[in-house]
Amino acid sequence: MHGNDDYMSRLDSFIRRLEAQRRMLDWAASAIAGKPGLVLELGLGNGRTYDHLREILPDREIHVFERDVSPNPASMPPAGFLIEGDMALTLPAFAARHGASAALIHVDVTTGVPDCDRILFAWLPDHVAALALPDALVLSGWAIDHPALEPVALPTGVPPRRYYAYRRIQSA
Amino acid sequence: MHGNDDYMSRLDSFIRRLEAQRRMLDWAASAIAGKPGLVLELGLGNGRTYDHLREILPDREIHVFERDVSPNPASMPPAGFLIEGDMALTLPAFAARHGASAALIHVDVTTGVPDCDRILFAWLPDHVAALALPDALVLSGWAIDHPALEPVALPTGVPPRRYYAYRRIQSA
Repeated sequence: MHGNDDYMSRLDSFIRRLEAQRRMLDWAASAIAGKPGLVLELGLGNGRTYDHLREILPDREIHVFERDVSPNPASMPPAGFLIEGDMALTLPAFAARHGASAALIHVDVTTGVPDCDRILFAWLPDHVAALALPDALVLSGWAIDHPALEPVALPTGVPPRRYYAYRRIQSA
Repeated sequence: MHGNDDYMSRLDSFIRRLEAQRRMLDWAASAIAGKPGLVLELGLGNGRTYDHLREILPDREIHVFERDVSPNPASMPPAGFLIEGDMALTLPAFAARHGASAALIHVDVTTGVPDCDRILFAWLPDHVAALALPDALVLSGWAIDHPALEPVALPTGVPPRRYYAYRRIQSA
């Protein structure tokens, strides 16, 4: 039925993006097994990836940062694990209390246009680097350029430029 | 990593729902091949399923009905194929002009709660039945109970109660 087999509908593309996201989360959960540290979800949105994280990491403390909290009610974080407000303020405040404390940080904030995210969230990578434990994993839907974050090869099945992974290097 | 293999995260569930939707659309597109008639998309939303329909049915006239038009700009229907407004009014108006004219109708309106859809959209099945050609396919995310619409077995891989399919029977 397809006029052009190379063409992918927006439905196709959306399904691939969600599958890549799930693969990234599952892979990261395995990668941090046995390593202590918090999990930070930057961006709650509808709450689907948060729901997935708490399913695959039932024993982790997962802290969620969100400015406009309106998830599906089934995915509302418990009291004390939702940090509401502008992340430009809440992330450094969290870092002041907890220091470099995260084994996994999932950067799940987006404008919907990855190329814009790098510009509009230019202030974010410093906070992410400050919160990450040495060797922590950082996952992001857009490319992060930061001297303390070293790109990591993606798991099998995740096409390049659909998702990005970084490892927090030891401070010099 | 899973505490309970029977549990499905909301991300898992969402991916399955989208995959089922895509499978339904692909299956319906094959099923109506060679049969004349319009395609009606009831509900545009983000435009992903509309985008998929026009990819797999490049030679069909696809008319889209939507009250609050705000798709991704890449999925805006061309002029003349978007019928804006309350479907309780626009569907009978379209039927008055075109009669039973559709080979495929995709009921893609939802409150997000399928059990509520049956009640809140109770006025919809009559309009769907009036617009469907004899033998037309009707796909819906929620169960439709109408004497002129006969349930059809779902394609392989679509779990029951994730999607529904009906065939318009000949008028008595």
